[in-house]
Amino acid sequence: MSAPKKVVLAYSGGLDTSIILKWLQTEYGCEVVTFTADLGQGEELEPARAKAEMMGASAIYIEDLREEFVRDFVFPMFRANALYEGLYLLGTSIARPLISKRLIEIAAETGADAVAHGATGKGNDQVRFELSAYALNPEIKVIAPWREWDLTSRTKLIDFAEKNQIPIAKDKRGEAPFSVDANLLHTSSEGKVLEDPAIEAPDYVYQRTVDPEKAPDAPEYVEVSFERGDAVAINGEALSPAALLTRLNEIGGRHGVGRLDLVEGRFVGMKSRGIYETPGGTILLEAHRGIEQITLDRGAAHLKDELMPRYAELIYNGFWFSPEREMLQALIDKSQEHVTGTVRLKLYKGSVRTVGRWSEHSLYSESHVTFEEDAGAYDQKDAQGFIKLNALRLRLIAMRNRRLGG
Amino acid sequence: MSAPKKVVLAYSGGLDTSIILKWLQTEYGCEVVTFTADLGQGEELEPARAKAEMMGASAIYIEDLREEFVRDFVFPMFRANALYEGLYLLGTSIARPLISKRLIEIAAETGADAVAHGATGKGNDQVRFELSAYALNPEIKVIAPWREWDLTSRTKLIDFAEKNQIPIAKDKRGEAPFSVDANLLHTSSEGKVLEDPAIEAPDYVYQRTVDPEKAPDAPEYVEVSFERGDAVAINGEALSPAALLTRLNEIGGRHGVGRLDLVEGRFVGMKSRGIYETPGGTILLEAHRGIEQITLDRGAAHLKDELMPRYAELIYNGFWFSPEREMLQALIDKSQEHVTGTVRLKLYKGSVRTVGRWSEHSLYSESHVTFEEDAGAYDQKDAQGFIKLNALRLRLIAMRNRRLGG
Amino acid sequence: MSAPKKVVLAYSGGLDTSIILKWLQTEYGCEVVTFTADLGQGEELEPARAKAEMMGASAIYIEDLREEFVRDFVFPMFRANALYEGLYLLGTSIARPLISKRLIEIAAETGADAVAHGATGKGNDQVRFELSAYALNPEIKVIAPWREWDLTSRTKLIDFAEKNQIPIAKDKRGEAPFSVDANLLHTSSEGKVLEDPAIEAPDYVYQRTVDPEKAPDAPEYVEVSFERGDAVAINGEALSPAALLTRLNEIGGRHGVGRLDLVEGRFVGMKSRGIYETPGGTILLEAHRGIEQITLDRGAAHLKDELMPRYAELIYNGFWFSPEREMLQALIDKSQEHVTGTVRLKLYKGSVRTVGRWSEHSLYSESHVTFEEDAGAYDQKDAQGFIKLNALRLRLIAMRNRRLGG
Amino acid sequence: MSAPKKVVLAYSGGLDTSIILKWLQTEYGCEVVTFTADLGQGEELEPARAKAEMMGASAIYIEDLREEFVRDFVFPMFRANALYEGLYLLGTSIARPLISKRLIEIAAETGADAVAHGATGKGNDQVRFELSAYALNPEIKVIAPWREWDLTSRTKLIDFAEKNQIPIAKDKRGEAPFSVDANLLHTSSEGKVLEDPAIEAPDYVYQRTVDPEKAPDAPEYVEVSFERGDAVAINGEALSPAALLTRLNEIGGRHGVGRLDLVEGRFVGMKSRGIYETPGGTILLEAHRGIEQITLDRGAAHLKDELMPRYAELIYNGFWFSPEREMLQALIDKSQEHVTGTVRLKLYKGSVRTVGRWSEHSLYSESHVTFEEDAGAYDQKDAQGFIKLNALRLRLIAMRNRRLGG
Repeated sequence: MSAPKKVVLAYSGGLDTSIILKWLQTEYGCEVVTFTADLGQGEELEPARAKAEMMGASAIYIEDLREEFVRDFVFPMFRANALYEGLYLLGTSIARPLISKRLIEIAAETGADAVAHGATGKGNDQVRFELSAYALNPEIKVIAPWREWDLTSRTKLIDFAEKNQIPIAKDKRGEAPFSVDANLLHTSSEGKVLEDPAIEAPDYVYQRTVDPEKAPDAPEYVEVSFERGDAVAINGEALSPAALLTRLNEIGGRHGVGRLDLVEGRFVGMKSRGIYETPGGTILLEAHRGIEQITLDRGAAHLKDELMPRYAELIYNGFWFSPEREMLQALIDKSQEHVTGTVRLKLYKGSVRTVGRWSEHSLYSESHVTFEEDAGAYDQKDAQGFIKLNALRLRLIAMRNRRLGG
Repeated sequence: MSAPKKVVLAYSGGLDTSIILKWLQTEYGCEVVTFTADLGQGEELEPARAKAEMMGASAIYIEDLREEFVRDFVFPMFRANALYEGLYLLGTSIARPLISKRLIEIAAETGADAVAHGATGKGNDQVRFELSAYALNPEIKVIAPWREWDLTSRTKLIDFAEKNQIPIAKDKRGEAPFSVDANLLHTSSEGKVLEDPAIEAPDYVYQRTVDPEKAPDAPEYVEVSFERGDAVAINGEALSPAALLTRLNEIGGRHGVGRLDLVEGRFVGMKSRGIYETPGGTILLEAHRGIEQITLDRGAAHLKDELMPRYAELIYNGFWFSPEREMLQALIDKSQEHVTGTVRLKLYKGSVRTVGRWSEHSLYSESHVTFEEDAGAYDQKDAQGFIKLNALRLRLIAMRNRRLGG
Repeated sequence: MSAPKKVVLAYSGGLDTSIILKWLQTEYGCEVVTFTADLGQGEELEPARAKAEMMGASAIYIEDLREEFVRDFVFPMFRANALYEGLYLLGTSIARPLISKRLIEIAAETGADAVAHGATGKGNDQVRFELSAYALNPEIKVIAPWREWDLTSRTKLIDFAEKNQIPIAKDKRGEAPFSVDANLLHTSSEGKVLEDPAIEAPDYVYQRTVDPEKAPDAPEYVEVSFERGDAVAINGEALSPAALLTRLNEIGGRHGVGRLDLVEGRFVGMKSRGIYETPGGTILLEAHRGIEQITLDRGAAHLKDELMPRYAELIYNGFWFSPEREMLQALIDKSQEHVTGTVRLKLYKGSVRTVGRWSEHSLYSESHVTFEEDAGAYDQKDAQGFIKLNALRLRLIAMRNRRLGG
Repeated sequence: MSAPKKVVLAYSGGLDTSIILKWLQTEYGCEVVTFTADLGQGEELEPARAKAEMMGASAIYIEDLREEFVRDFVFPMFRANALYEGLYLLGTSIARPLISKRLIEIAAETGADAVAHGATGKGNDQVRFELSAYALNPEIKVIAPWREWDLTSRTKLIDFAEKNQIPIAKDKRGEAPFSVDANLLHTSSEGKVLEDPAIEAPDYVYQRTVDPEKAPDAPEYVEVSFERGDAVAINGEALSPAALLTRLNEIGGRHGVGRLDLVEGRFVGMKSRGIYETPGGTILLEAHRGIEQITLDRGAAHLKDELMPRYAELIYNGFWFSPEREMLQALIDKSQEHVTGTVRLKLYKGSVRTVGRWSEHSLYSESHVTFEEDAGAYDQKDAQGFIKLNALRLRLIAMRNRRLGG
């Protein structure tokens, strides 16, 4: 790879990506464009502008992507009821493709020939950033300083920062007790004090959800309404995608909903332990399953369920911009045409449960299922033929085995 | 079908199956053998003996099948983390094949040519009973009185009972407000007051779990140990399968764990709403997922996850004794060779969460995942080649699309 | 089911469906509308009109559906490379939904409350006809005379025909030595002389393909061009869907291509043996696979391959008009956007093989794959990291097993 | 990676691996143990011994692995009817794990700390060799000279050989017109003259099958007998696995059976074109499908068909020694318990077709399928209930859509 001339850097404004900014300039003698996105991580972005200016960024992009994030990434994923390894709501995974998409677009706008990110060489995020980048621009150069440089310890990083007049917040001189990633969908924490999966995570790790033991003593009901598979209203109030997820986060957070302690298999091969908080997403998944229960046909629902782990794996592994993810999305979206209606949920001290659901699109037929007289909706005698023919191949097997003395 | 000469009846001792007993005798003039099993439903069985004797059963079988039920049916299913439609732990479904197996065995012992059950023509249970029966004896006759007789209302049933001197408990004269099935794994309730899925189930429906709001204010920790995929000890105390599940039911029940309000797609085609209580099973699923997190390889785990919905569907639909269920079981069992270790869980007011897990069989490697210096366990530079080759096909697609101006 | 007032009958003009026409009139005293479709079965349809008129049909529909058949049913199916049980091209299965669709549409036009077909109670066709009918009109009545009447022998049928002045062709008095179904996609033969699957089918069974031993001694090349997954031209000549398939049938037929002797598992539970001739379809499948080889990404292709058996099973079982088939179709169609280009095939004495393929949409990159100097298109050193990280989880397993002395 | 001290080299005796032998000695100053296996590639192995001795190999292993290859690798794979991308019989892929297994075992015996192979950095074989090696010995060093050295042209290789007194056969001085791999299962050819996938492969590429046009004018019948999924006899003669496959290769080869021209997606990301000749394997696949048709239940067969592409992909990608391949194998092997019987096939000018099959384990029931009177084996009236309940969910969808005016 020849040296880059101009790099678009995914820039948080924090110490690490500030060091990267400077390192890119000194190592490659290249221009650096910074890109800072508001994905709902809950940090002020304007300080990033000042810092980038001070460090000589050749252009500065600061953008609020919250609506795009929820509308075009989070919601399509939730249509699938996606869970990685049965439990993880993919809060980090789903944010990466959007960041890469904007990096590549900004590279095109600014004439940059490279993009850079601050993910390490051990994690999944490097894969997600880079697969997305290559899929959107096959000629782009990708620079991952953590895989290249020799700043392999905290001390060396601080030294580099000091030598290069990079401001260092007091609390950044020492090592953080764990590493955090956050956006509108979730907060994840991993590493350091969390590295022994036998030991319960200390309470100070949780940042976004109240301890269930400190949650209100009274349960709260919330109603989520859906149209064609996407949530559109809370308690009857129509909300934009990002506003809706923000609202669900508030509600879930105060009831301690959405905490997860998981050891998962990374795409790069090792297992890692993460603490995830996904308050709104946890409610959303429960609600979406609730509305699908009455509006989605069994054949459709089971096919979705069987393909979900594959779909979740693709997102986890960084293949959002792949033909197979798009094919699965087409299948999933097709299933959602009638997933419209309202679910009533009960939140209480860490849990959320569906307690009611209704819809004009419902497939639930009281006249078919009733224990009462059903006025001919269903002829119980049909069940005999149904069973007899479903059993036929099993009987033929049994006859064969008998014949053979098996 | 020619008339049966001798029928083995799945007999609970209750009013409905007592009516069936008599109806079989009068309708077909046949001998009836009763079979009553203790699957942990929590009812005394000896009254069934007296009743069967009184009504002239030609032989009476009463058996405690709890250990066989948990060891040979529940545990194999839990190795798969089976959930039907994402949520249902299959508590009723998994009991039916065992009952059918004993019906068929008793038919062979007693020279009976038919078996009979008390399931209605609208539900899944008839299918489960009969598919299992036919798979185990292809020549058996199956009698499902609810699909045959004209006792289609409560009044007619009571009339028939009175005419035939069948004792009727006072509380059975009226209609029950909902229908219940129970065994060691769960209690399910459905029908009548539960038929409108928009309306929250009344609290009196729940029989086995305390209302989470009335659960203890202090959380409780429990440790579940596994060997080769099966739970073998609670808090260090080795327990037999049935004793272990009984213990977990007690623990879960007092914390309000394992309530589910579900609308599901029945195999016979309509949707129905059920309230399920599976306190021990809910803990067991969480614990099993917890121990798999550190002992099961990612490739194995993801394959299991993808096949789980199919496996659950087979059990739900009644295909326990089918070659495809047995094939999936072989695959699942193969994966469990190292699923050995202990999980620590926290129960609190309706929820159960894994908070720690450890095992000599662990695949988790702190030296690989650590944020600290890893002593060469992992070369971060390998990630570049990994990403580049994973990206190659995506780049070739992007180049193609560019070339075409797409 | 109350008696039908007006029935639309799938009417071939042959003896059996003529008997059904009369039987419906006499059994139910209802009007009968006949529907006769040209799906390329190679029979004149006008005699059916005369016969239906003579027998007092209240309305007569005769339609050429060949283009719709190929365009909307055959081609979408071939996008999936669908094969049932690895071998069968689904020639009969794919025709049934179209016939049902028109039956239901004609019922709506003519105010009929029922449809009827001539399929027996043992086969798959009854299921396909009826599932499609119910999916398109949930209130329709379906009459399947073969499951109802007592005309259970050839003698009784002939008697009924004679009593009712139904003309009987001379060769229809005796039993046919096997049963045939034909349309533009295939001819199937089954039953009678074919019932022992150990015995080779006699040559006179084959009606549409020459014996490979009598095929030309010189091979023939044919080029099939595709656009977005569908064949559009043969040897450079643009053709409509039905014209194209007709052409391929001629070419394949004269080279003895597309014969299949299969024992398959029917949806109704037993196995049956069929002899299929699908000359054009066999060429089309090979060609479609050929063009996908260079235009379809590996990830997309493998996902399609994994879902194909399910898709084929749905069509075989009669679930064309089901949400899950439509979901899979959405996924498949999404994959075909770039399946455009030309395949060169060689036909010779019963076989067809791809020998070349080219496309502007090709993903094949000679500069990547070449054994020659590749000018930096591919860095062989990337392979090391790719392998190392793919191996990591396998190494962790091996280390664990060693540690345990396994 | 520290320098290796002793390397076990997969050594063919040809020029390229002789150069590697010398290069390892000079580059690393290490001992080299050679391992040469007879997998049925049809070459004399003793010359490899003489050459290895002359070049100072520290130990020389020459082994006939044909029986192990067919029994433990080829046959298990054929139980799955494995085809990669619908067409490729995986002849090269399935040989690699066995070679790696012996390399690792010999490393243990000889105290070697590394293994080496002659596969290039662009292909799949490097991945297969190395994943297998790492899975069997997580500490082993793997040396892939083609990814390391600077002998990047034919001229440089010849120079190196001359400087090091490595004998060069006359026909090896120039470039081969294409590259070949062979074993008892197949011969593959790729590269150079085959690199344009639009151009038909020249006839001289084919080495193991006669041109179908030059095959005998008379067809030949062959009967293959199976026990529990594995072929055990040809025309009634019991044969060992390798002898049986050898025999099928002779028969298939003389009839021009098993030629394939394929463009496939490599695991490393690009597409490549290969010409494969698998005469015996092609017969074996057809025969295995034939015997499964009558002995394997539909549910079992369809599950196998759905999982086959995944299984084939795992083998193609080099994951033979992975838990997921072993899990799938357990599932597949479970299905083969009754796959016992005989298939009759007809070979003629390039094609092989099943024309008959019989077995004591047959599930085919003439009494069920017959068009004749079936003596009550099957009640056609059962089909109505079967269809009605299968249709119920489709009708509920249609009612819902009607209600909504859809």
